[in-house]
Amino acid sequence: MVHVTLLGGGNLANHLANAFFKAPGIKVHQIYNRTLQKIEHFKEFTEITDELSTLKPADIYILAVNDKVISEISKQLKHLNGLLVHTSGAIALDMLKTNRIGVFYPLQTFTKDKKIDFNTIPLCIEAKNTEDEVLLTKVANTISKKVFKIDSLQRKKLHVAAVFVNNFVNHLYSIGENICAKNDIPFEILQPLILETAKKITSLSPTQAQTGPAVRNDIETIEIHKKSLTADQTEIYTLLTEAILKNTN
Amino acid sequence: MVHVTLLGGGNLANHLANAFFKAPGIKVHQIYNRTLQKIEHFKEFTEITDELSTLKPADIYILAVNDKVISEISKQLKHLNGLLVHTSGAIALDMLKTNRIGVFYPLQTFTKDKKIDFNTIPLCIEAKNTEDEVLLTKVANTISKKVFKIDSLQRKKLHVAAVFVNNFVNHLYSIGENICAKNDIPFEILQPLILETAKKITSLSPTQAQTGPAVRNDIETIEIHKKSLTADQTEIYTLLTEAILKNTN
Repeated sequence: MVHVTLLGGGNLANHLANAFFKAPGIKVHQIYNRTLQKIEHFKEFTEITDELSTLKPADIYILAVNDKVISEISKQLKHLNGLLVHTSGAIALDMLKTNRIGVFYPLQTFTKDKKIDFNTIPLCIEAKNTEDEVLLTKVANTISKKVFKIDSLQRKKLHVAAVFVNNFVNHLYSIGENICAKNDIPFEILQPLILETAKKITSLSPTQAQTGPAVRNDIETIEIHKKSLTADQTEIYTLLTEAILKNTN
Repeated sequence: MVHVTLLGGGNLANHLANAFFKAPGIKVHQIYNRTLQKIEHFKEFTEITDELSTLKPADIYILAVNDKVISEISKQLKHLNGLLVHTSGAIALDMLKTNRIGVFYPLQTFTKDKKIDFNTIPLCIEAKNTEDEVLLTKVANTISKKVFKIDSLQRKKLHVAAVFVNNFVNHLYSIGENICAKNDIPFEILQPLILETAKKITSLSPTQAQTGPAVRNDIETIEIHKKSLTADQTEIYTLLTEAILKNTN
């Protein structure tokens, strides 16, 4: 039985707790958060605490907290012997200040109250020592079928890539929503297209899947489109059209 | 029984034919394409032809052809009495040159050989005459549960919105793929995030769903990210980051 202690009370900590409660061979030992209120609903399943000094010996401590406090909290955990891992895409391994350190980065966007199946979530793991990597792999495999060894440099790149395919993509969705709203068009008309566009790249490379006026070099349609946009939208339209043209011609 | 004649041999024509073959109250009367080879596989289900002059009387003629030839083909169909509709997001209704005209625009991206459930595809319809609108609605309802009355101006806007949420989004996916390839990271790590980002906006407005360094105004992370990108990627990163900042702050 591997004893796992979770630190954090946000979306990720909550989803991780729920996944580990059901994981074979895992015992969620304690859950820490600086305010008890956010983890009180776990009281019936495990011990909860708001005092770092009360943390008991465990095999792994998983820091699912804000990037800004990772280093700070890790300094307060120097007396612990277990493996300490953070869950951030942006923070380097060596920002952790204890002896046995690692990273346990689930690459997914988490929404509060929306159930998620951890089995399909890629877990990017890294550890300073080989034995800890073995332990971390074992623990990761209990909740996900997609475990990848990713070092700090790769993780940094992945984090940027995720900004493109998640944050920036979402902004393009909001432009679509905006255009619909201004023209009395229900946004739901675009939703099946959005889903299919996302599904497509699981069987086809995005470069191969590229369609639209830019890839066809259809200047006439491009000019008509630009005329109907706001100045800000036109800037984005122009830059992305040029990028696609460059990529494919 | 409504008699439907299809014109075209591409992805859309193929998907429409398969949907209408199974549709209640619909008889696919003829399928036309300028080369028979692309529609030969329909021979056992309906009559096929490569001569516009051999088209028989039908209730509706659906033009699922390239935008560029819509006007031209419609001129050659002036002698027909049935309702003529095109399937394009970009072409105005009055580009059709016959008497009874309309639009039957399925807002989706179609991939060859990939089965698609028409039931969930939004069909945007428009007709010049009220009776034809009734007929078109009836026909549309036989293959989809999502039928919307959308006029030519709205359709034009929808088409631009679709470029943002489909073509441009796909280009951002290809940037993600590119970053992965350059750093020996399997692209499949990003796929669950891509799917979840798309699914999220069916229950949450994209503006509310926005996350990431830009919306948090996390200048430090933004600067770190920019340093790891190519010049072209940096330009896109900067513009979209500014757009998100503007949108939310």
